[in-house]
Amino acid sequence: MIKAAVMGYGTIGSGVVEVLSRNRETIAKRAGDVIEVKYVLDLRDFKDDPIQKKIVHDYRMIADDPEIAIVVETMGGVEPAYTFVKAMLTAGKHVTTSNKALVAEKGAELIALARQKKVNFMFEASVGGGIPIIRPLNACLTGDVMEEITGIVNGTTNYMMTEMTEKGVDFDEVLKDAQNRGYAEKDPTADIEGYDAGRKIAILTSLVCGKQTDFEDVYTEGISHITAADIRYAKEMGRAIKLLATSRRVKTSYAVMVAPFLLPKTHPLYSVNGVFNAIFVRGNVSGDVMFYGSGAGKLPTAGAVVSDIVEMAKHIDKNIRVEWSPEKLALADYTCFKNRFFVRAKADKANAVEAFGGITAVEAEGIDGEIGFITEKMTEAEFEKRAALLPGIIQKIRVAD
Amino acid sequence: MIKAAVMGYGTIGSGVVEVLSRNRETIAKRAGDVIEVKYVLDLRDFKDDPIQKKIVHDYRMIADDPEIAIVVETMGGVEPAYTFVKAMLTAGKHVTTSNKALVAEKGAELIALARQKKVNFMFEASVGGGIPIIRPLNACLTGDVMEEITGIVNGTTNYMMTEMTEKGVDFDEVLKDAQNRGYAEKDPTADIEGYDAGRKIAILTSLVCGKQTDFEDVYTEGISHITAADIRYAKEMGRAIKLLATSRRVKTSYAVMVAPFLLPKTHPLYSVNGVFNAIFVRGNVSGDVMFYGSGAGKLPTAGAVVSDIVEMAKHIDKNIRVEWSPEKLALADYTCFKNRFFVRAKADKANAVEAFGGITAVEAEGIDGEIGFITEKMTEAEFEKRAALLPGIIQKIRVAD
Repeated sequence: MIKAAVMGYGTIGSGVVEVLSRNRETIAKRAGDVIEVKYVLDLRDFKDDPIQKKIVHDYRMIADDPEIAIVVETMGGVEPAYTFVKAMLTAGKHVTTSNKALVAEKGAELIALARQKKVNFMFEASVGGGIPIIRPLNACLTGDVMEEITGIVNGTTNYMMTEMTEKGVDFDEVLKDAQNRGYAEKDPTADIEGYDAGRKIAILTSLVCGKQTDFEDVYTEGISHITAADIRYAKEMGRAIKLLATSRRVKTSYAVMVAPFLLPKTHPLYSVNGVFNAIFVRGNVSGDVMFYGSGAGKLPTAGAVVSDIVEMAKHIDKNIRVEWSPEKLALADYTCFKNRFFVRAKADKANAVEAFGGITAVEAEGIDGEIGFITEKMTEAEFEKRAALLPGIIQKIRVAD
Repeated sequence: MIKAAVMGYGTIGSGVVEVLSRNRETIAKRAGDVIEVKYVLDLRDFKDDPIQKKIVHDYRMIADDPEIAIVVETMGGVEPAYTFVKAMLTAGKHVTTSNKALVAEKGAELIALARQKKVNFMFEASVGGGIPIIRPLNACLTGDVMEEITGIVNGTTNYMMTEMTEKGVDFDEVLKDAQNRGYAEKDPTADIEGYDAGRKIAILTSLVCGKQTDFEDVYTEGISHITAADIRYAKEMGRAIKLLATSRRVKTSYAVMVAPFLLPKTHPLYSVNGVFNAIFVRGNVSGDVMFYGSGAGKLPTAGAVVSDIVEMAKHIDKNIRVEWSPEKLALADYTCFKNRFFVRAKADKANAVEAFGGITAVEAEGIDGEIGFITEKMTEAEFEKRAALLPGIIQKIRVAD
């Protein structure tokens, strides 16, 4: 029997306890041993819940118990998660976390500490919820040099964009709806401004290049400026607006960006709707590969954590090599990204042509007093230069091929 | 430095040598050591090729060389691959293979032998070419009990169905074209009759249930009976015909089948075209997950083999547990599958109603002298019973929701 502890009995933590119980026998076969949760760390008590007899309030009870081999961290946030996780690894315990903030900021350090202590630090649930993506990058596509990773990695904003598209309603209304359903938090900034997606693409980039990608360096544009009018234009073009996180190889580095894109129907991410996520990768030998599934949700995310537990149980005596050094990756300048751009402006078409050269006009029913057009393909830098020549621009959205 | 040998210098074997050379440095970082091919086993000589100096003709040279830690088998077919692989494992060498025939028939035995010898037997490339699917099932979705696996796992037939759909041409013509392009073999039976897909779904089923699924037990229907007329009906219905391999949980076993299905536009596999493959899985905690990519091709398949090499290099001192025992899985009766059926018959509509009850008529332009209809949802067994009451049936194709 392998004894485990869960730190944080919120949605995901309680999901982990539930999955371990529901699929106990299958999991035991795959892990080679039964997994038993001995402690659950939480500030709260759960008086009428059978979990109460496992509740502890001091993380040192877990760190100091030599019986505990595997620790699950599902508290979220960098502190105190970081202090707790470090204590567990230092005490020679394997750790899995669903906490993208912790992984994005401290991943390299915790991986190095785990290696030193001959245990594992895993984080399958930190990106893409129930979609296997961390292990596929660490253990499957390892023969490839990655040319590109592009994903819909934030379920909240994808739900919101899908609703705006299907119902034609405006941003604020959809946000309220998403908050009522529990898909968006009270303070939705991290989701809607793309910071959450930025942390996730930073983690994925770190894994494929083997160096630390700081999420603060990622150019991030959210969806809060997208309006019902933009959606109307998108429909006119037969396109969908999706918040993409994208990382593309530029020589020995990567250019990384989070921004809304207009996707054509032929794009592999076009039909990824609602709270589903998908991550598309392009390797120099495997070509295009896509992973699709539930990007969030109690059970799918808990399932990803449990798959880490099984993997750690199978490697209870061994550190699995992960190539993610603390050496900082100097990101390539994102302004080298080349796209077409959709532009809305309170301006004359003649002025737009003067500023941008060849453009394709786009009209949407019921929208007057402005022009809409798509530019030729150009770099971000080139676009900014040209946009400065056209006063009256009220919107720009990147156009994916 | 880790020394490897490649057995079989055909398309995939030479691809493995190419990938190891092209991405040598990245691979060395991930594997923790440089991978060097010391021998290439082939019956042939390659006089003007630098590979010639590594060519050997006797597999025992490899088995007997203590320097060789990892062996790649890319010869295909059960024998002599089986004899060679067994010798390598017995000699304490890790083995990866792209050979689905070998894995489907001897997988459980070779996994057990590898465990006994404390090495690994891996086969990521045997299903889905460049799509990571074996390791995701073995190491990612391990917290789940799998409810369903459904995939387009044969690139040849998917290319043919896509061509028939896009060009409206008949089966024989498309087959010739596929043979000319090298997508179909001279004897195309294994692909077009669904045996190849049957072997692959048997492998996937074995992995998720942990027992031996014999491909001979899989009900298999190919695409050779699909005609241009069927495609016309499919278009009329807004559907695509795809050869699916599907495995669904029935109590503690699985019902497994390969057959063409009519897919609606909303189906996740609808837009998987050409030589692409995709595998959809449904877990009881992770929900729906899909993997998409190049189902075949020299480099993608070689990339999958190389990912096994990296994994074995990282586990050079350890057998990774794989749950696939030689105990035979008694498959659930496939006739319990419930579907609607599309039927074409030289018969009266009244007789069709008499036989099948509620039906939905389908017409296709330019097709006369027959009726086309879709039945209600019923089991395979029920369908056979009812079909016996309607003389003149010339086609039936299952309809997926």
